[in-house]
Amino acid sequence: MDYSNTKPSEIRKLIRSGEIDFQTSGMANGYAQANLCILPKDYAYEFLLLAMRNPAPCPILEAGEVGSRLIKKMADNADVCTDFPKYRIWKNGVLEKEVTDISEYWQDDFVYFLIGCSFSFEGELLSAGIPVRHIEKGKNVPMYNTNIALESAGRLHGNMVVSMRPLPYDMVVNAVKVTAAMPRVHGAPVHIGNPEIIGIKDVTKADYGDDPDIYENEVPVFWPCGVTPQNVVMNAKPPIAITHSPGHMFITDVKNSALKL
Amino acid sequence: MDYSNTKPSEIRKLIRSGEIDFQTSGMANGYAQANLCILPKDYAYEFLLLAMRNPAPCPILEAGEVGSRLIKKMADNADVCTDFPKYRIWKNGVLEKEVTDISEYWQDDFVYFLIGCSFSFEGELLSAGIPVRHIEKGKNVPMYNTNIALESAGRLHGNMVVSMRPLPYDMVVNAVKVTAAMPRVHGAPVHIGNPEIIGIKDVTKADYGDDPDIYENEVPVFWPCGVTPQNVVMNAKPPIAITHSPGHMFITDVKNSALKL
Repeated sequence: MDYSNTKPSEIRKLIRSGEIDFQTSGMANGYAQANLCILPKDYAYEFLLLAMRNPAPCPILEAGEVGSRLIKKMADNADVCTDFPKYRIWKNGVLEKEVTDISEYWQDDFVYFLIGCSFSFEGELLSAGIPVRHIEKGKNVPMYNTNIALESAGRLHGNMVVSMRPLPYDMVVNAVKVTAAMPRVHGAPVHIGNPEIIGIKDVTKADYGDDPDIYENEVPVFWPCGVTPQNVVMNAKPPIAITHSPGHMFITDVKNSALKL
Repeated sequence: MDYSNTKPSEIRKLIRSGEIDFQTSGMANGYAQANLCILPKDYAYEFLLLAMRNPAPCPILEAGEVGSRLIKKMADNADVCTDFPKYRIWKNGVLEKEVTDISEYWQDDFVYFLIGCSFSFEGELLSAGIPVRHIEKGKNVPMYNTNIALESAGRLHGNMVVSMRPLPYDMVVNAVKVTAAMPRVHGAPVHIGNPEIIGIKDVTKADYGDDPDIYENEVPVFWPCGVTPQNVVMNAKPPIAITHSPGHMFITDVKNSALKL
């Protein structure tokens, strides 16, 4: 089934009904996708401060009022508890389980944060004639933990998570130009070329998503990734946190073109 | 005494010693100035959300950790309690008093927010050959309450406060261009021409700062203003809040040019 031309509201309906519980790369071509982090109010200020201080991995697309599960700006009448294909429940920094609906976990003091996703610029890359390997292969994007320390905020600290797309040498510069114009969905790459420099020992093994397919004469290009808050949750160990499952994104009603500079 | 070429750190020293307790327009030419809002932690998330939702009047230059009075990024080793020439203490939305040092009012749960100031773009206007009347006259900028509602955040709501500079007709477009390039210090005007449209009944009487001097054949041009949080404080009535006194700004070590697009 190809969802690349399905409307966002249709995809959200299929997600809500449980029909789609898999990764969303390539779905609803032209529309932005979003990462998720939910924390108790006690951590909300620190998280928004962390995001403000680290806008490349954590560009905030929408932040909720305390206790509100309604998504208002990035979609028409969506529910943060049901409209992601898969969620992760974290207790004291440990991943406890994955679920497809978090209604029963919702607390009155929860605050949600929707964060820009690099899936949003993949359509722009394709339009510019730049191939996106994991879409070609029907796989999730490979993501990695790095040694790039975030600027901390209060109790929240951790390292940047990155997504990787392998590119032929002669397309790297253009890929930088295309993505740099979209800072609200992570913008330009954070590293090009040598995975070890950013603390990735074995680029063939992804920490999140699917392992990569890198061909000969290709360069691994790394972008800041909205899974970064999950690294923060692991390090800062809040009593409870809920995130999306990597690659299992929220499909917004907002066109990628609206997020360009 | 002309402080236009005095170094920011020197001016802050004079402010800390009490020698400067007056408005700062035109001081330390080339360096950004900042507005202030301090709130208890209980309001910190909502304030940062309000700022994110209303970036034109409330562009955040720096936000503090809970309980920290140290300014780290916008200046080298500055103290938010002593380095503004004048502060306002607000209780339940009512202005209680003005003081020149807030050390005795500081609480462990306080969070400070430094907000961009339009004084920062006045040097750019002057460089472009655009006159700035209140600097010519050695007065504070005129500021007004408006009917422009902010997008609220939780308990925080209110209307935009604006600053006004009268300009000859043939300089209005260029003033828009110059200031639009500086969104971190309020950016482009929010209104040009008819004060009544934005709820200002008598433009000759300022709500904050000094009354204006508008000459014949000049247009009043209004910019979003960092006094806006004071209108929010009046409306939302938090138990305590501390702001700067309008026009009595923090002089940063950051050049205005560093805040340009």
